Amino acid sequence: MPHDPEDHPVVPGPGGVGTPARRPPLRTMLAEAHSGMLLFAVTPPRRSASAEQIEEVARVTVGRLAPLDLDGLVLYDIDDESDRNPADRPFPYLPTIDPAVFHADHLRDWRRPVVVYRCVGKYPEAELGEWLGAADVDRVAGVFVGASSGQKTVHTRLRRAHELRRRLRPDLPLGAVAITERYTRNGDEHLRMLAKQEAGCGYFITQVVYDVSATKSLLSDYLYACRERGLTPRPVILTLSVCGSLKTLAFLQWLGVEVPRWLENALRHADDPLTESYEQCLANAAELITFCRRLGLPFGFNVESVSIRKVEIDASVELAAQVRRMLDAAR
Amino acid sequence: MPHDPEDHPVVPGPGGVGTPARRPPLRTMLAEAHSGMLLFAVTPPRRSASAEQIEEVARVTVGRLAPLDLDGLVLYDIDDESDRNPADRPFPYLPTIDPAVFHADHLRDWRRPVVVYRCVGKYPEAELGEWLGAADVDRVAGVFVGASSGQKTVHTRLRRAHELRRRLRPDLPLGAVAITERYTRNGDEHLRMLAKQEAGCGYFITQVVYDVSATKSLLSDYLYACRERGLTPRPVILTLSVCGSLKTLAFLQWLGVEVPRWLENALRHADDPLTESYEQCLANAAELITFCRRLGLPFGFNVESVSIRKVEIDASVELAAQVRRMLDAAR
Repeated sequence: MPHDPEDHPVVPGPGGVGTPARRPPLRTMLAEAHSGMLLFAVTPPRRSASAEQIEEVARVTVGRLAPLDLDGLVLYDIDDESDRNPADRPFPYLPTIDPAVFHADHLRDWRRPVVVYRCVGKYPEAELGEWLGAADVDRVAGVFVGASSGQKTVHTRLRRAHELRRRLRPDLPLGAVAITERYTRNGDEHLRMLAKQEAGCGYFITQVVYDVSATKSLLSDYLYACRERGLTPRPVILTLSVCGSLKTLAFLQWLGVEVPRWLENALRHADDPLTESYEQCLANAAELITFCRRLGLPFGFNVESVSIRKVEIDASVELAAQVRRMLDAAR
Repeated sequence: MPHDPEDHPVVPGPGGVGTPARRPPLRTMLAEAHSGMLLFAVTPPRRSASAEQIEEVARVTVGRLAPLDLDGLVLYDIDDESDRNPADRPFPYLPTIDPAVFHADHLRDWRRPVVVYRCVGKYPEAELGEWLGAADVDRVAGVFVGASSGQKTVHTRLRRAHELRRRLRPDLPLGAVAITERYTRNGDEHLRMLAKQEAGCGYFITQVVYDVSATKSLLSDYLYACRERGLTPRPVILTLSVCGSLKTLAFLQWLGVEVPRWLENALRHADDPLTESYEQCLANAAELITFCRRLGLPFGFNVESVSIRKVEIDASVELAAQVRRMLDAAR
């Protein structure tokens, strides 16, 4: 992937004319509720991979993402969610390396912060407490995720994980997940966000956003609910992901992402669904930037590829570069 | 209302450089499935109005709309729909003049075509047949509307009205109503459109569109359903209406229009909801123009004011002028 010099626009910054526009570190952006942070999310390699393979994945990942001027790298924690959807999983579930281990042992060349997801139900309290105690708050932020269904055996409940973090590491920036589709279904996702904020969460990362109108409604209800209660709205980091094939579309839908019917039709009938979805992601980013700025809600973006196909990963990297330019242009 | 010369853009047309761009008559645009028709919809005066008041309404209406380069004037037929929603109607229901009578007796100065709505359940077959027989197909198109609920006493069912028209006046351009919210609720509105097309309807006029994403899904499903069956898609005329007050918002919602929550919030918190909704209508028009062109679906617009407040009517007229410019620019 060529390093596009536009990734680092030269605009008057604190250092004077001619220096790249700099943003404060992710930790400050989150704490002070800035807008404009850009993250990129990856899933750690499978546990079955060899040491050499894992090193290679880490090397390729850092090489791909280093030119992007990201504010942080998100490391997902994958749970076997087959309990929540009886339909066949389009891609197989394979256990992956612990994201904190992947960070500590393999991402030495990644110089910027990481956001470590924690499916808290997977971990006994002692293990979660150990990770909390060891986390370097200048390099690491967390996101706690609750169990994907009520049927699962859970080592630590989300509420208890929040208590642990408040007690052991209140200085660790902690985020929560926000899900548009839960808002569409139940109408109370903005209230769940407020409850997580009350429990100490300082920012939100959404599930992949394809239903922009419903996402705008969630953001709007969240903002006005904060205003009514005299609370400062916390940054909402909106996740975008391209969809380059019907298999990826099926996987997104299995994950619970609501793809509007018109877009599903367009992808199904497109000669080149990857380009179609890439353009739609850019249009969605533009619409969400305009909307959040007008609303006065702090926001950023997170880009991921839900597929492991190289063309989709490459398109995700290009999407992140373009979103970086859009965020910089809008400042 | 000033006559903006941009209403008639001077572009190379069939008559050569320097003549206004002309479209074929509405009847031809509908028959040949053109795009770009612009209608404006009004409700005839109340039956309780005096002859002088009715003449004055007709005079003001024609004066307002004559500069707009409309392809036709829609005359609604109002039915008492209080049976379909137990909630109080925000504006009172008052019987209005028959739209065909208003046209024949009071709109002599309106030189362009009219689209006469017929709530067919209100009329005995003989009366509907009489109107069909008398309609001048060069000046009049029809839209048949079924009963608003199954509970109502119905003189003529929609299916029977379609049979009558096929038998008596197959040359009369006949349209049907398309409702996004019915699509959202039941998922089969595009199939209902196909059934109406099968019954002889050659175009569609939507209910007021506020939920653009769902409307795009309806249009997309309609287009692909036509393609699957080897049918030519018929023009869909998308209705836009500004919402200048919370009372108008309540009325739109009573009518069954799904206003996205984020837009409802924006209107409720706006210093000037009329400007907010006007700008949103323009953004919606732009999005729908881009979408329909890309999809290859013939389309046009219909602008109405659901409120009788002068500022909202004036904004509707300005909206129609702006949509005319957008349609002309996009040709």
